[in-house]
Amino acid sequence: MSRSINLAVIPGDGIGQEVVAQGLKVLNAALPQDVKLETKEYDLGAQRWHRTGETLPDAELEALKNHDAILLGAIGDPSVPSGVLERGLLLKLRFAFDHFINLRPSKLFPNTESPLAGNPDIDFVVVREGTEGPYTGNGGSLRTGTPAEVATEVSLNTAYGVERVVRDAFERADSRPRKKLTLVHKTNVLVYAGHLWKNTFDKVAEEYPDVTTDYLHVDAATIFLVTDPGRFDVIVTDNLFGDILTDLAAAVSGGIGLAASGNVNPTGDFPSMFEPVHGSAPDIAGQGKADPTATVLSVALLLRHLGYEDRAVRIEDAVSADLAERDGTPRTTDEIGDALAVRVAG
Amino acid sequence: MSRSINLAVIPGDGIGQEVVAQGLKVLNAALPQDVKLETKEYDLGAQRWHRTGETLPDAELEALKNHDAILLGAIGDPSVPSGVLERGLLLKLRFAFDHFINLRPSKLFPNTESPLAGNPDIDFVVVREGTEGPYTGNGGSLRTGTPAEVATEVSLNTAYGVERVVRDAFERADSRPRKKLTLVHKTNVLVYAGHLWKNTFDKVAEEYPDVTTDYLHVDAATIFLVTDPGRFDVIVTDNLFGDILTDLAAAVSGGIGLAASGNVNPTGDFPSMFEPVHGSAPDIAGQGKADPTATVLSVALLLRHLGYEDRAVRIEDAVSADLAERDGTPRTTDEIGDALAVRVAG
Ligand SMILES: CC(C)[C@H](C(=O)O)[C@@H](O)C(=O)O
Ligand SMILES: CC(C)[C@H](C(=O)O)[C@@H](O)C(=O)O
Repeated sequence: MSRSINLAVIPGDGIGQEVVAQGLKVLNAALPQDVKLETKEYDLGAQRWHRTGETLPDAELEALKNHDAILLGAIGDPSVPSGVLERGLLLKLRFAFDHFINLRPSKLFPNTESPLAGNPDIDFVVVREGTEGPYTGNGGSLRTGTPAEVATEVSLNTAYGVERVVRDAFERADSRPRKKLTLVHKTNVLVYAGHLWKNTFDKVAEEYPDVTTDYLHVDAATIFLVTDPGRFDVIVTDNLFGDILTDLAAAVSGGIGLAASGNVNPTGDFPSMFEPVHGSAPDIAGQGKADPTATVLSVALLLRHLGYEDRAVRIEDAVSADLAERDGTPRTTDEIGDALAVRVAG
Repeated sequence: MSRSINLAVIPGDGIGQEVVAQGLKVLNAALPQDVKLETKEYDLGAQRWHRTGETLPDAELEALKNHDAILLGAIGDPSVPSGVLERGLLLKLRFAFDHFINLRPSKLFPNTESPLAGNPDIDFVVVREGTEGPYTGNGGSLRTGTPAEVATEVSLNTAYGVERVVRDAFERADSRPRKKLTLVHKTNVLVYAGHLWKNTFDKVAEEYPDVTTDYLHVDAATIFLVTDPGRFDVIVTDNLFGDILTDLAAAVSGGIGLAASGNVNPTGDFPSMFEPVHGSAPDIAGQGKADPTATVLSVALLLRHLGYEDRAVRIEDAVSADLAERDGTPRTTDEIGDALAVRVAG
């Protein structure tokens, strides 16, 4: 394990700057004394685009490669046409750095309200594929803007891409107490991609006899996420289904203010990138209202990824304790960050 | 309005037979005395496929065209490979009869439990596109079953197809008290299809100045469905997003035992088809455990479509009253059907 961390920081847009500042505060508090943290901030996002028209220039993409990991706040602003920053920056990073594991844990912390009745027990993780499916940007539009327009979106799925994420999910399931893995897809309609996913899943399952498996169509999975979220342990799914399920999962587990994620390349060939699931929330930006907890939990995933398991747990425990002791008094972004940093350091 | 109804009935698989029987019972009770109901049952589904290898032969597709409407129970059985009946029968009907409006109301009835805390006010309708998107069966697989497999799914979207469903949704929104229409898509990632949907939506919106509009990404829409379902009035969306959102909507509105749907071709060129949103539930088939309410509510949609608005309302009121007076005693499929028929007739 390296005794230094060379971290790239992309605060991005809206509340990104605020929450990332708290993430770094807690990261500093969590690191062992002898680990040197170096950070370099990258000015990417809406403002940069307005100023220069650039989303992610090659030079910066190259520079980012040299970091051990990336911490990202949030990307997106209503002043930028939909898709420009998402595809030109966020997805570009995920694809360029081959982040094929998009890891999104969902846990209902103590003293945290779920919109679901009866305070269910929720503790699962979604392993979302990150480099294929309908996210590849394949597609086009013909006779655009005319009454004869045809627009297509192509979902690309490869045995190579599906097998690696399915294997990763089986490994994770095998290492958890309940050892249960659910594949989510829509095999009854998307039969080509569906067969590839299902066959790969069934084949890899043979190597993990201790893991209990099941399969759900994506529509049915949304039902269980609200009627019986406790049935899930690890879910593996396609890029788009994972996008949808993890927002829903975050909502039922106390809201996207708490949902962390990691865009992981487990090979180590490229830096992995950690970011809260929430967006840039321009409506509350700069007001100290944003909850930095999702970013702080993303920092825990980052530390786990870099080998500091005990420090990751320390952060997660701090969040858990902080939430448990909340009394409803509103706190600023900074106050929450301070409270978490104190707990982590203590 | 025709004083006779020539109805095709496709009970299908699993609980389909049971729930359709109750649907017909209530339909009979609801119809004015002078309206002649003729029904013809079609033997389609898993058993037929096992016996003959056929899903929907041309002769039967032709015969179905001559009906005023179709009542369908449920399609699907674990003994049939995934996709065979869905694509060969259910989707084939939706596509062949150009059912471009897939209408799915969500209403939380009185005395009905939602998995959501606080018993929210839910009363919206999803207008799901029914003949395009990722459901067209376009796609394929190369080097199938090898480590070099590539599988694709193509989402097809046309200005023609998008505009007609968007117009229908604006009409519906304009005729409701709240007059609010939400477009759901994923324009920040699926930019080609997204732009077509968004531009069409914005263009048609100019003709409906009284309708308030907004837009949500599909992932965000799932969040609001569990945190603030009352914000929705009419939702218009793509075929796949509509599939996902309506199962979730059904779950939060008391379960898929209550969710009705209509596959509608408003031009009248082909018969429209009405079916519960739930599946064939083979695990409880033949035991009298299935709740026929979703099928009965689908019959209400059918009557509304054929011009019997007052009879549709009568069925909906009967369901509402029946649910309000439930006392938790379990009832058989047949008992629920009887109770509803009595209320509707009385
Ligand atoms: C912003 C958008 C491109 C992104 C996605 O769809 O992956 C976001 O919703 C997420 O889940 O990280
Ligand atoms: C059975 C399946 C093909 C169907 C769909 O995906 O449309 C079902 O889920 C539905 O929503 O009616």
